[in-house]
Amino acid sequence: MFNIAVAQSGGPTCAINASLVGVFREALTEPEIDAIFGSVNGIEGIISNHLVDLKSMILTNDDMELLRQTPSTVLGSCRFKLPDYHEDDAPYRQIANTLRQRNIGAFFYIGGNDSMDTVQKLSAYFSETGSDIRIIGIPKTIDNDLCVTDHTPGFGSAAKYVAATLHEITRDSTVYSIPSVTIVEIMGRHAGWLTASSAVLHRMGETAPHLVYVPEAHFSQERFLADVRQEMSKHKAVIVAVSEGIEVPEGVQSGVVDNFGHKYLSGIGKYLESVVRSEIGCKVRSIELNVMQRCSSHLGSKTDIDESEAIGAAGVRCALSGESGKVMVFRRISDMPYTVTIETADAAEVANCEKFLPEKYINSAGNNIRDFALNYFLPLIQGEQHLVMEHGVPKHFAIHESVLK
Amino acid sequence: MFNIAVAQSGGPTCAINASLVGVFREALTEPEIDAIFGSVNGIEGIISNHLVDLKSMILTNDDMELLRQTPSTVLGSCRFKLPDYHEDDAPYRQIANTLRQRNIGAFFYIGGNDSMDTVQKLSAYFSETGSDIRIIGIPKTIDNDLCVTDHTPGFGSAAKYVAATLHEITRDSTVYSIPSVTIVEIMGRHAGWLTASSAVLHRMGETAPHLVYVPEAHFSQERFLADVRQEMSKHKAVIVAVSEGIEVPEGVQSGVVDNFGHKYLSGIGKYLESVVRSEIGCKVRSIELNVMQRCSSHLGSKTDIDESEAIGAAGVRCALSGESGKVMVFRRISDMPYTVTIETADAAEVANCEKFLPEKYINSAGNNIRDFALNYFLPLIQGEQHLVMEHGVPKHFAIHESVLK
Repeated sequence: MFNIAVAQSGGPTCAINASLVGVFREALTEPEIDAIFGSVNGIEGIISNHLVDLKSMILTNDDMELLRQTPSTVLGSCRFKLPDYHEDDAPYRQIANTLRQRNIGAFFYIGGNDSMDTVQKLSAYFSETGSDIRIIGIPKTIDNDLCVTDHTPGFGSAAKYVAATLHEITRDSTVYSIPSVTIVEIMGRHAGWLTASSAVLHRMGETAPHLVYVPEAHFSQERFLADVRQEMSKHKAVIVAVSEGIEVPEGVQSGVVDNFGHKYLSGIGKYLESVVRSEIGCKVRSIELNVMQRCSSHLGSKTDIDESEAIGAAGVRCALSGESGKVMVFRRISDMPYTVTIETADAAEVANCEKFLPEKYINSAGNNIRDFALNYFLPLIQGEQHLVMEHGVPKHFAIHESVLK
Repeated sequence: MFNIAVAQSGGPTCAINASLVGVFREALTEPEIDAIFGSVNGIEGIISNHLVDLKSMILTNDDMELLRQTPSTVLGSCRFKLPDYHEDDAPYRQIANTLRQRNIGAFFYIGGNDSMDTVQKLSAYFSETGSDIRIIGIPKTIDNDLCVTDHTPGFGSAAKYVAATLHEITRDSTVYSIPSVTIVEIMGRHAGWLTASSAVLHRMGETAPHLVYVPEAHFSQERFLADVRQEMSKHKAVIVAVSEGIEVPEGVQSGVVDNFGHKYLSGIGKYLESVVRSEIGCKVRSIELNVMQRCSSHLGSKTDIDESEAIGAAGVRCALSGESGKVMVFRRISDMPYTVTIETADAAEVANCEKFLPEKYINSAGNNIRDFALNYFLPLIQGEQHLVMEHGVPKHFAIHESVLK
């Protein structure tokens, strides 16, 4: 018998807690597993030995159902990057101490490609130091930019929110008789998956989004203005979906850099709004979907939430089969009927690697998404969870903040 | 037998189409009423004789159900202000021409207090010119700032979205271990109803929103900073709900004025974000709920949508009883069990009048909402519509844009 630990890392999504439920529910059924620890604030909780006993917190099936509809990370998160252990093994020794002291035989890290870097480094360290502690990565990110896996847990819910909200913004934008341009800024530093997903509205007979700009296509301000003018000749209200990460002139982006060297981007929508206002002079507004696109679990995709739980559970079975340094991935068998299998990949293949929107998904003008590409996105946004409501608002599962301090 | 016309005006909400359904469905059952015309882009469609035959567009009960879940105004909107007819009766004569030519005996105007100004002026004009054409106002606004009525159609759905989204933002904001401040900017030019509604989260045991600033309370930047510092001493992640219309120093607001003399406000959240960053120096971000708070029908309040339909239907019965120059209003009989009746008020009482949050709803520090006030808000956000989905996204009812041109 041994214990396990699970942690959540990186930016919030609607599906990270579902993956936690997957690990937890599967571990409950495994006779080899005793205690299930949650690490507070990602790997930082392992380093500082700040663990909580999840069995004493998640008590019932109803608790698990609530967790599945609770966005963000119930155990907190972090953006901690492990150093190379050949240069500095201090955090590794702290991690090993905590895991050994708590008799933890497997650690599950739910996170994005930065977290998969941690999975790779930790599993390599344990392998080199002769430890049999297993490290398994469970992917998540609304950006959908992880390599190897067909798609990432959390992406489908974000895409569903983006599509539904763009649909509503389209209704909102078409009410007045004067011509207008509405620019919707969508998350995605380098990969345009989430922005591209808004094009699923075309399958509903919508002409919006009329223009879609992703980081994978070269962005030219002159061509953007020409595109907008052309769409204005056809539609009273032009709807533009734009990734936060498209190339714009120096100085538009704030240039602040986070721990992983990512530029902190914002304001592309506002910038393009000002360009349209000064160059075209029509009614124009910009809308930032902001954190709502990653935390609006009230409109989560049931497909995404179910898959996120399933991939967490598969991670437990993978560890029990003796594997380590693996990341659980989806492989798509077919779009229709939608069929995926859960497999494993080496963490090294997934860590520090970004998967971009295929060039063939983008139209030749570089300003919209091709129709056949929607077959990729559509299955991921299907189905709605039955939400437990309280006082008219979706209820959340929460661990008291004093426990997490 | 006579015909009727209905139009929609002002800013979009999730409930204006439900009121249209109310007028339409009720009119179908009235043997006195023949054609049901929809006026395109509010009163402008009457002036320009741009009407559509709604019976040829809304064909089935399913169409009505779709309309109930479709945000914004399916017939378009306008922000047209009628002049005083003693000074300029040209638009009045055009309106009278259209109504007579189409044998329209009653006109229903769904809108905010600017539209109720139109209802008042038109009914006074018809009364003075000896016409028996009846003009009835159906209220709507997410701002909830109409006089006489207990609340306005559209407010409950906006409040439900704001509360649910603030709940999710609270989860999103508490993931990292470092202290942070999140400022959520909510619509409301002069009245803080929508911002105040976010405090319903307190009934769910949430400490957020920790601070709530509404235009009805004097805003001081010094006190705001002191408030934030105090909340930071108690909570790792401080959540602030702020109305777009709070008083801030000159220059923060753009000062652009619309046709009704309303200042166009924006950027209060961004402004306070910069104040916190420079004065406190902690992690801080601002989030604008933007048009999503008025068009997110995917999370509409069933109570609101049902009431919005009912008040439209009541308007038809009111016109048939011979009334004109009236606005339909809700009177609340009790909070629990929640009971309202639909009554009428003179349009003159409602037009050009704003109803503010009662002083007693605001705590003595002017930075949050008192608990008893939540009894006002809670009934309005109860219940969810069963949504018709298509391709994973709520389906909308739409009239083809070529028809509305």
